[in-house]
Amino acid sequence: MVIIMNKGAGEEEIAAVSLEVRNRGFGVHRSDGAEQTVLGIAGEVLGIDPRTFESLPGVQEVVLLTEPYKLASLGFRRKRSVIRVGEIEIGGPEVVIMAGPCTIEGEEQLYRSAESVAKAGARILRGGAFKPRTSPYSFQGPGIAGLELLRRVGDEMGMATISEVMEAGQIEPMLPFVDILQVGTRNMQNYNLLAALGKVNRPVLLKRGMSATVQEWLLAAEYIMAGGNHDVILCERGIRTFETSLRNTLDLSAVPMVQSLSHLPVIVDPSHATGRRDMVTPLARAAVAVGADGLLIEVHHDPDAARCDGPQSLRPAEFASLMGELRLIVQAVGRRVSEESAASLP
Amino acid sequence: MVIIMNKGAGEEEIAAVSLEVRNRGFGVHRSDGAEQTVLGIAGEVLGIDPRTFESLPGVQEVVLLTEPYKLASLGFRRKRSVIRVGEIEIGGPEVVIMAGPCTIEGEEQLYRSAESVAKAGARILRGGAFKPRTSPYSFQGPGIAGLELLRRVGDEMGMATISEVMEAGQIEPMLPFVDILQVGTRNMQNYNLLAALGKVNRPVLLKRGMSATVQEWLLAAEYIMAGGNHDVILCERGIRTFETSLRNTLDLSAVPMVQSLSHLPVIVDPSHATGRRDMVTPLARAAVAVGADGLLIEVHHDPDAARCDGPQSLRPAEFASLMGELRLIVQAVGRRVSEESAASLP
Amino acid sequence: MVIIMNKGAGEEEIAAVSLEVRNRGFGVHRSDGAEQTVLGIAGEVLGIDPRTFESLPGVQEVVLLTEPYKLASLGFRRKRSVIRVGEIEIGGPEVVIMAGPCTIEGEEQLYRSAESVAKAGARILRGGAFKPRTSPYSFQGPGIAGLELLRRVGDEMGMATISEVMEAGQIEPMLPFVDILQVGTRNMQNYNLLAALGKVNRPVLLKRGMSATVQEWLLAAEYIMAGGNHDVILCERGIRTFETSLRNTLDLSAVPMVQSLSHLPVIVDPSHATGRRDMVTPLARAAVAVGADGLLIEVHHDPDAARCDGPQSLRPAEFASLMGELRLIVQAVGRRVSEESAASLP
Amino acid sequence: MVIIMNKGAGEEEIAAVSLEVRNRGFGVHRSDGAEQTVLGIAGEVLGIDPRTFESLPGVQEVVLLTEPYKLASLGFRRKRSVIRVGEIEIGGPEVVIMAGPCTIEGEEQLYRSAESVAKAGARILRGGAFKPRTSPYSFQGPGIAGLELLRRVGDEMGMATISEVMEAGQIEPMLPFVDILQVGTRNMQNYNLLAALGKVNRPVLLKRGMSATVQEWLLAAEYIMAGGNHDVILCERGIRTFETSLRNTLDLSAVPMVQSLSHLPVIVDPSHATGRRDMVTPLARAAVAVGADGLLIEVHHDPDAARCDGPQSLRPAEFASLMGELRLIVQAVGRRVSEESAASLP
Repeated sequence: MVIIMNKGAGEEEIAAVSLEVRNRGFGVHRSDGAEQTVLGIAGEVLGIDPRTFESLPGVQEVVLLTEPYKLASLGFRRKRSVIRVGEIEIGGPEVVIMAGPCTIEGEEQLYRSAESVAKAGARILRGGAFKPRTSPYSFQGPGIAGLELLRRVGDEMGMATISEVMEAGQIEPMLPFVDILQVGTRNMQNYNLLAALGKVNRPVLLKRGMSATVQEWLLAAEYIMAGGNHDVILCERGIRTFETSLRNTLDLSAVPMVQSLSHLPVIVDPSHATGRRDMVTPLARAAVAVGADGLLIEVHHDPDAARCDGPQSLRPAEFASLMGELRLIVQAVGRRVSEESAASLP
Repeated sequence: MVIIMNKGAGEEEIAAVSLEVRNRGFGVHRSDGAEQTVLGIAGEVLGIDPRTFESLPGVQEVVLLTEPYKLASLGFRRKRSVIRVGEIEIGGPEVVIMAGPCTIEGEEQLYRSAESVAKAGARILRGGAFKPRTSPYSFQGPGIAGLELLRRVGDEMGMATISEVMEAGQIEPMLPFVDILQVGTRNMQNYNLLAALGKVNRPVLLKRGMSATVQEWLLAAEYIMAGGNHDVILCERGIRTFETSLRNTLDLSAVPMVQSLSHLPVIVDPSHATGRRDMVTPLARAAVAVGADGLLIEVHHDPDAARCDGPQSLRPAEFASLMGELRLIVQAVGRRVSEESAASLP
Repeated sequence: MVIIMNKGAGEEEIAAVSLEVRNRGFGVHRSDGAEQTVLGIAGEVLGIDPRTFESLPGVQEVVLLTEPYKLASLGFRRKRSVIRVGEIEIGGPEVVIMAGPCTIEGEEQLYRSAESVAKAGARILRGGAFKPRTSPYSFQGPGIAGLELLRRVGDEMGMATISEVMEAGQIEPMLPFVDILQVGTRNMQNYNLLAALGKVNRPVLLKRGMSATVQEWLLAAEYIMAGGNHDVILCERGIRTFETSLRNTLDLSAVPMVQSLSHLPVIVDPSHATGRRDMVTPLARAAVAVGADGLLIEVHHDPDAARCDGPQSLRPAEFASLMGELRLIVQAVGRRVSEESAASLP
Repeated sequence: MVIIMNKGAGEEEIAAVSLEVRNRGFGVHRSDGAEQTVLGIAGEVLGIDPRTFESLPGVQEVVLLTEPYKLASLGFRRKRSVIRVGEIEIGGPEVVIMAGPCTIEGEEQLYRSAESVAKAGARILRGGAFKPRTSPYSFQGPGIAGLELLRRVGDEMGMATISEVMEAGQIEPMLPFVDILQVGTRNMQNYNLLAALGKVNRPVLLKRGMSATVQEWLLAAEYIMAGGNHDVILCERGIRTFETSLRNTLDLSAVPMVQSLSHLPVIVDPSHATGRRDMVTPLARAAVAVGADGLLIEVHHDPDAARCDGPQSLRPAEFASLMGELRLIVQAVGRRVSEESAASLP
């Protein structure tokens, strides 16, 4: 941290600021420039609000020289993290595809949807059991019974599972059924939930808050990591902007931006960002081209009958066709996606 | 709800859409216009996603004619709600001032801050015990011990108390100490917390999410009300926009907007919106002029020594001066604020 | 400007950056801190893109210590500017009210609208002749003929006049008729127009761009001032955000923010910001309470028949009632508004 | 257009609204539903502000059923437009690459930059002569002399040329030198400039305004087309959002969105959106993968010495490498890009 004093700052002001810094436990190095004095602060300053010093008399500006997160920063690990989920590696050479229905509605729906995505090359089965719904009058999901089904169908298809957790109390009951615990966009700054996830030995997929900066997103990851759980996968899912022709604005530049700041893998959810089936395919292609480590896509065997998010769910044939396009695009980024598994499934 | 069919929509498409509507339990009234057919849907359609019908073949547009919330809507009560907290009425003729420090730091700090705001005319004492901090390395608040102090000092000053709740499990322990439970901006869509607050017999102050539309904010209130607790106070505290010269953009137009849609009282927090002491006073004046039912203001007896949010906390003299200005402004809106209580305090 | 080098920056990198700075004509002062080297740049650095140095090897961050504008900055004049329009002073103790119809539609409309606002206390008559319309198929305004009428009616009512200019070629023809040249929100960064206005001896009202930061707004003022015309009045009129329940989000915090950065007067237009008549009155009150130097308000003697912006135009009685409320509010900010002139008008 | 009346709307209100609609020259078809009356408006309603009817007594909501633009709409042409610039076709099977320096600085700079991009496969040479700079103190470009150079170097390399026009008066002088006239983001709603471009027989590249919705962008295109010039190329270049880690947020979803609404070709400028060289390559790949018809990229033979936008300009080798990646990605979208022309250049 560097504190830049005003041009006219007097000795008393400089002394008072230096004292205040030392009182908070940091060393100070003073440099008198031609026009103004600069105070360099030595030591790690995580958790300090720069405004604390900015409002002292004589201070012009406070510059944080390090990011406010540490465990999540690229500098902490030097190399990219690879998160292991059974045999699947997220953040490695393979672009990992997670797919399935928005909500678990019943056995046939889940089985048929899962079968189609498994055949086309998806590795992880998604399906919501606890649903964060904007309206208290909307269907809130099937709960734990749905997760038992998710595990059973996933096993049969040879897929790992992912589902959303909405509060700390749900974590323990979900562990037998879910390989990746997903934190939704509305809970990205639910710090009690993040802290609880930090105590679990299970990968967490952390969706970006609808209006979270990249820095806040990485600070949310830091909450989980500070508790001891370093297996965090980031997921860009669209941000809120003035543009309302689509539900949200997918921020694909966040992918290389995160990769320049953090070692954590980052995937993209084009389904929630757009809310429209015809937009999912082009944006899924773009996400892989921009360098994402994976995709999270809603697929339903019969979207018109879906209880939730039907309009944004791909049909099985559309998903298979997208997978074909992705197999061409990964060449440009030196990666691969899983092949179609025509025969091996039940 | 009205479903407007495409100009070229055929009889089969119209029939299929009508069937789909009836399958979901609603009546249909068909009108054949000069150029296109319009289907009117009878009955309450809360919780239905209009996209469900929009993606059917032949449908041009679906128009929701009622707001997606009901209990929170102006039409539900016809007259404005007044929330009672002891003898204090929020939403009545008095503009109610809530003030105090960001975080409860200790007895002297809380006592001296409380004393100054009580004398100047504040009715409700604020003070954080559980703090939602962006960084896991920042001070997280004193917890329940802080709330005991809040209650004790509040009682001594003749003030009611308000403090933030961060998860369902904190509600019960907080009840003995806190007269209004506050939901922070980051938890506005923490639906599990909202549902739990719906079961309590205690007023809730619901801060607007940093990027929540007015409609989503009222839907969050509806979550609480749908559980049985109708004592919800809304609080505008700044939204996230492209402008970063201040921390957030205080959306004062949301006050009359909410009042045109809902019967719930709405107050304003100018401290968090701006993050700068010199901005709090003008925006507090503006909030009362625009018609807010109250203010929530950070005041600290010695802001430079504050552990949290010092730069945005008013000093006691600044707060007293603001109260004087507000006593002039309320005349223009036909309201009043509490007088200075020079003598009565200990 | 201060250039902060990386922790590991070598002597060669530091030398190369210093050379680059000197090559651009600036002096350099080097300070070697405990952990990293800081280079202070002496001299005025207006017009330099900090990214130029930020991308050099070894540089961690470049901090601009002065605002990128100069003539518009508070430091340049020390005291607030007062812009004179005949006997009217904008930026002085009087809160100046500008009112009138969106578009000049004809003699009766303009006369009756002007008469009503003059009686209620407005000092400056507004009326559009060249209209920036989003659609090429909308009415584009009456042109110069409308401005002749504006001048004639203004003179009769004892009011100064204001109207919007859309390109440099319109300036000369407008000068006989218009006392204040208005730049619309869509042209705030039309630099050719701004440069041309810098050459004229006539006050300019510069509306904030719909998505302009306060800094960009002041840089646009600087364009006009750099040409020699220092009579710039700023006008906040709402910014574009994610919230769409109203047309734009009126950013009232921009008023004290601008006043902390610049000596220029700043007024508020609540009509365009909200687009709804019932929102204009509360936000006009709030604008005066927050400290604005004036208001720009659309008033039409018969809004339902207006060719443009009828839904946001106040009726004469509503405007008179608002003026009464403002006369109470100005007391709280130590200012005044013009009285009703019941008798003196024709 | 459909006008939906309130549930309690009386016969008088319905009659008054119908009359108002007929007075504006439209036919009305009335449908009495079970709960409320709907008025269908027959005929084209371009240029009508729906709020005109929405503010009439008894009206609940007005729904525009057609987009407010016509010539730019997909329905107007049914098939995608191909804009011809000499032998180059924009909007056809080839993804057209436009590249070159931000500003024309001199002969050697332009020649060497042009040579490198031509060899790598770019078809159109970009270079700014009139620069819209946020600060009046920044370099404003070389003017017409620069354009003569642009034409000469372009001819030598076998490339067409593109450069930005800032006001109507510059169009005529630019025509001999520039094959595509570019409208910058700050001028997207400079209606006088758009109208003037509508009278010219020369393709126009229309950049999206920094905070323009897709609808406003297409309405700006409509302004040009309504004047008679149908050769409009749209260019997405990043929108302004709350996220400031990069200069703007590139909205790649706007590409398929525009393609679902309009027949006009749409290209992407990843250089201005991000402002950082290391972000340009991944986002250029993503733009082609999402289906863009072309790219506009800043390339400089020596970015560290550039007078403008050096930090976001690709080096020749980086650009050549990007072109190689694009040749793989186009396969996934069934398109092609121009090959390297190793030998043919001077």
